[in-house]
Amino acid sequence: MVNVPAYQLRAAELVAARDAQIPEALRLDPSQIPHNPSKLYRKVLSPREVDIVELDVTGLAGAIAKKQYTASEVTEAYLKSAAAAHSATNCLAWFDVDAARERAKWLDDEMEKNGVVGPLHGVPMSVKDFMCVKGFPQSSGHLSSAGHVPKEDADMTAIFRAAGVVFFAKTTQPQSIMHLETSNFYGTTTNSHNHDLTSGGSSGGEGALVGCRGSPIGITTDVGGSTRNPAAFNGLWGFKPTCRRVPRDGMLGLTAHSRIMGAIGPVCHSKRDLDLFYRVLFDTPTWQRDIKLVPLGWRDVNSEGQGAGFNGWSGAGNKLRIGVMRDDGVVRPVKPIRRAIEAVVVKLGSAGDVELVEFPAKWFEEGWAITNQLYYVDGAKKLRDALGDEPMRPLTEWITSKVSQNLSREQVDDLIARRNEIRQMYYDYFNSLNLDVILSPAGPAPAQPVGTTKWWAYTSMWNMMDWPAAVFPTGLFVDDGDTEVFPEPKNEHERHLYDTCEFWVGYSPRREAESQDSAEVARGSPVGLQLIAPRWQDERLLAALEKIDRVLPL
Amino acid sequence: MVNVPAYQLRAAELVAARDAQIPEALRLDPSQIPHNPSKLYRKVLSPREVDIVELDVTGLAGAIAKKQYTASEVTEAYLKSAAAAHSATNCLAWFDVDAARERAKWLDDEMEKNGVVGPLHGVPMSVKDFMCVKGFPQSSGHLSSAGHVPKEDADMTAIFRAAGVVFFAKTTQPQSIMHLETSNFYGTTTNSHNHDLTSGGSSGGEGALVGCRGSPIGITTDVGGSTRNPAAFNGLWGFKPTCRRVPRDGMLGLTAHSRIMGAIGPVCHSKRDLDLFYRVLFDTPTWQRDIKLVPLGWRDVNSEGQGAGFNGWSGAGNKLRIGVMRDDGVVRPVKPIRRAIEAVVVKLGSAGDVELVEFPAKWFEEGWAITNQLYYVDGAKKLRDALGDEPMRPLTEWITSKVSQNLSREQVDDLIARRNEIRQMYYDYFNSLNLDVILSPAGPAPAQPVGTTKWWAYTSMWNMMDWPAAVFPTGLFVDDGDTEVFPEPKNEHERHLYDTCEFWVGYSPRREAESQDSAEVARGSPVGLQLIAPRWQDERLLAALEKIDRVLPL
Repeated sequence: MVNVPAYQLRAAELVAARDAQIPEALRLDPSQIPHNPSKLYRKVLSPREVDIVELDVTGLAGAIAKKQYTASEVTEAYLKSAAAAHSATNCLAWFDVDAARERAKWLDDEMEKNGVVGPLHGVPMSVKDFMCVKGFPQSSGHLSSAGHVPKEDADMTAIFRAAGVVFFAKTTQPQSIMHLETSNFYGTTTNSHNHDLTSGGSSGGEGALVGCRGSPIGITTDVGGSTRNPAAFNGLWGFKPTCRRVPRDGMLGLTAHSRIMGAIGPVCHSKRDLDLFYRVLFDTPTWQRDIKLVPLGWRDVNSEGQGAGFNGWSGAGNKLRIGVMRDDGVVRPVKPIRRAIEAVVVKLGSAGDVELVEFPAKWFEEGWAITNQLYYVDGAKKLRDALGDEPMRPLTEWITSKVSQNLSREQVDDLIARRNEIRQMYYDYFNSLNLDVILSPAGPAPAQPVGTTKWWAYTSMWNMMDWPAAVFPTGLFVDDGDTEVFPEPKNEHERHLYDTCEFWVGYSPRREAESQDSAEVARGSPVGLQLIAPRWQDERLLAALEKIDRVLPL
Repeated sequence: MVNVPAYQLRAAELVAARDAQIPEALRLDPSQIPHNPSKLYRKVLSPREVDIVELDVTGLAGAIAKKQYTASEVTEAYLKSAAAAHSATNCLAWFDVDAARERAKWLDDEMEKNGVVGPLHGVPMSVKDFMCVKGFPQSSGHLSSAGHVPKEDADMTAIFRAAGVVFFAKTTQPQSIMHLETSNFYGTTTNSHNHDLTSGGSSGGEGALVGCRGSPIGITTDVGGSTRNPAAFNGLWGFKPTCRRVPRDGMLGLTAHSRIMGAIGPVCHSKRDLDLFYRVLFDTPTWQRDIKLVPLGWRDVNSEGQGAGFNGWSGAGNKLRIGVMRDDGVVRPVKPIRRAIEAVVVKLGSAGDVELVEFPAKWFEEGWAITNQLYYVDGAKKLRDALGDEPMRPLTEWITSKVSQNLSREQVDDLIARRNEIRQMYYDYFNSLNLDVILSPAGPAPAQPVGTTKWWAYTSMWNMMDWPAAVFPTGLFVDDGDTEVFPEPKNEHERHLYDTCEFWVGYSPRREAESQDSAEVARGSPVGLQLIAPRWQDERLLAALEKIDRVLPL
C-alpha cells in the first residue's frame, strides 16, 4: 500500500467537492478542448447565448435593463460557458449553480415589480477565491485555509451585490496568493489562449475564466501585479486602483501587507467596463463606515484631461503627454512586448492629440528588493506555519527565498523610509517631465510556460508606489515573427527569462532543432501593455486610457 | 571660579542672540508687566494700532485689501505688540524686524502696482520654531538643533507666503517638542492671561504670542495636542486637521512620528479665521507635488450640513447631532471645565437646531498607552542622543518614562494593529449613535502651573485616531467659584491633577490656609473646549463649529 500524505488526501477531497458542484451536463470531455480555448464557448453555447457572452458588462447590463435578456437567461449562458472554461483551464475554486439561478430569478422578479435593482442588474460576476462571497466556501490558496464558508460578503462583494450582480463562481489563486501564476491544491490553471502556458497570477483563475468568456467580469486583487498580470496574459483589461479608495475588509489573506498594500480591481473585456466598475465603487460612500478609506467619490475627467483637480492634459496644446518606459532597466522585454510598445507608440504618434516622450525607468531593481522584503518582514514564518505539512511550491519557494530572516524594527523602518524616498523621487521625476501617464510593459514577456514567471517589477513597482495602473489588450498576439537572438543576459533575472523564452518563443539559434514544436507552444498568446498614473489619479488614468482605446486593436 | 556647563553657555548665547533681535525701544521693563498680560497691548499701542491688533485675520486682510491700513502700518503695530507679549511671556524664539519691514514694504508696493498678492495680503503670521521660514534661524527645541538657518520655506510657510503674509517671528516650543507646556533652553513661556501659569504646549510660544495679540495667527503643529492645548490655555481658536491633507515637509523635528502623525494648524482669534486658513491651504494643490498628500481640495459644507459627501446633519429634522463626552473615563475634568461643558450644552440645547446626546468615552487609557509607546518606539534613544549633555527636563523625563525600551517589530506591529482596531471601533461607536461631531474637554483642566501638565489623552486620542479636532474659547474664565472638594483620585493621573489643582484652583479643604494666594494664581485663565469629527471631515467640523460660535461667548 502506498502511503498517501495527509495533505494530498485533503486536497483530493477539496477538488472532489469543487468538481461535484459542476453539473454533469456542463462538463466537457478533454477531447473537446482545443489548444486555444478562448473561443471554446462558441462550440458550447447557442447562437443567442454566444451573443450574450460576447457583450461586455456595459452592453450586457444595458441589454438586461432593456429586457432584451433576462438575468436567468444570461446566468444560464454564463454557467455553461464557465463550466467549459473550467474544463479547459481549471480556473474554478467553487461553482454555485443553485445560488446563481436563485439570485437570477429574484432579480427577474424584481425587474418585473420594481425595475433594475442597480446598474449591474443581472450581470454575472466571478470572484477571486479569498474574497468572501456569502455562502461560498473559500480558501486563501493553501490547504489549511480551505473550507471556510463566510456568513457575510466582503465589503467589495456587498457593493456589487447591491448593484445587482449574480455571483456564481470563485476562482483559483496560487499557494500563498503570491505567484504571477496559479497553482495550488486545486492544480494548475492554464491560459485562456494557450493550454501550454500559465494563466498568470495571482488572479489566474479570473484571467482564464474571463479570458474564455466564462464570466464577463471578475473581482481580483493586486499586491504585486495579481490583477494586471493575468489581464495581460489573457488579453483582458485590468485595473489596479489607488489603495485607500477601495474597501479591503472581508478577505481572508495571510497577511494584511500594510507596508505594500493590495488593491482590488476588475479584469474584464472593455475599457468602458472599467469605468462602470469604478463609478459603482467610488460612488458608494464606503468611507462613511470604513475609517481606513479616503472620501474620494468618482470624479469626472473629460477627454481634455479636465477634472479631478486638473485643468487639462500637460502637453503643448492640451495634448495628453505620455512617458514611454520601454524597459525597466533590469529585465529587457522580449520581442513581442517591444513590438507592441512600438506599435502603440506609432499609432498614438499619429493620433494628433498625444505627445510621447521617452521615460527611462529608475529604481526598479532596488524597488523590487524593498518590495520583496516588505512582503515578508517575518521571513515568511507566518506563511510557513500556515502551510504546515503542505509542501511549498517552487514559486512560493522563490518569492520567499530572499526573505528568510525575520527583520528587526530598525530594518523595516529603513526599508519604509527608502520606499517613501523613492515614492517622492519618482513623483518628482515624473513631474519634471511634465507627464500625464506612463506607458510601459506589464512584464518582460507575455504568458510563459507554467512555473517560469518570476520577474514582478514591471507591475510591483506601482504597488510599492501605490500608483494606479491599468493593463490593456493590444490586440496583438505572439507569432512566429517574434523569435529573436537574445544578447548575453545582464543579470540572473534576465538569464532566467531568456532560458525560459528559448523554449517559449519557439526559436533561438541555440535550440533550432526544437523550434517547430515550441512555436506551436507560444503562438497565439495575447500581448497586453500597462498605463500608469500618479497616486489618486485613477479617473485621470481612465480618461487617458480612453485615448489608447481609440487606437485599439492594433 | 564656578564651572558653567557647556550647554548653559550655549543656551545663554542663543538667548542673547534672540534678545538682540528685539529693538531696545520695543522692550518693556518687568515693572510694566501685569499679572494678566492679555490686554498689555492696550498700554503699548496707539489707539489706531489697538484697532489693528483687535481685528481678526479675516477683518485685517479685508481692511488691508480696502486700503484702510498698509501692510507696513499693520506690521509696525504687531512688531510693537509682539515685543510686549514677549516681555510678558518669553514667547519668541526669533524676531525679525528687518525682514518683516522689508516684506511689508514690498507688499505695499505690490498693492499699489497690482493689488493684493493673495488672500492674506499684509497679514503678519508667526511660526512655531521648528517649521522652516527662509532665513530665520530655528531649532527643534533642544540645544544641539539650534542655529540652523533654512535656505527655503517649509511647504506650509511657502503656501502662506504666497498668500501674502508677513513672517516676523518664530515662537518657542519645549525641549523635545513633546510637552503640553513650553520650557527649553530659551527658558519658560508663560500664559497670556496669567503669569503664574503655563502657556501650554508644545506650541506654547504661539499660544502666548497670539493670546496677547502679538500676532493675529500662528502656524503650529499637533501630534498629541500641541495646537489645541495652547489654544485652550490662552483663549484661542485652534484646529488640528486630518493629517494627509496638510504638507509637513520642511520641519526639523526629531522624528517623523509616522505611526502617530503630526498635523499642522493655526491658533487664532476667530472661527472664520480657521475657515480662511484652510481655504487657502486646501485650495493649494499641494498633492500635485507631495506624493504623501491626498487630493482633497476645500469642500463647502453649508449650515444644513450638506456637502463633502453628506446630505445634511444626522439629527431628526436635519439637526446637528452632537455627542457630549464630558469625561475621558480616566481623568475627570475639574470644575471650570465641567461648568463650561454644561454651559455650552444648555446654550446649544435651546438653539433649536442642535440635538445633544451623551457620548461616554471609550478606550482612552489604552489609547494613551498605545500612543505614548508609538511616539518613542526606540525607547527615546534618538531623543537622548540628540540632547547630548543638555539635561532632560522633567516633562521630557515624564513623557519618555514609560517608553524606556527599544520595541521589537512584533511589538510595534501589535501596537499598530490595536491602534487600527480602536480606530475602526470608535468609528463604529460614533456611527452607531448617528453623530455628526463630539463635544469634549480639551484637557482635564485649564492652564496649570508650570511643570504640572501631564494628561494628554483628551487631545492625543484624536491624533491616534487622525480625526480633525478644533478648540474654541468658551468666553469663560476660571473664577473663585471654581473651587471644589476633590473625591479620592481613582488613579495616578487623577491624583497628579488633584494635587496640582489644590494649588491651582486656589481652594481645597486640605489647603485652606493658602487659599487666598492661590485664588489669585488661578483667576482669569481662559476655558476652552474641543469639538471633534471623523477623519477627513474637516470642513464638516468647521461647519458644526459655526453653530457653536453662534452661542459664544458664554
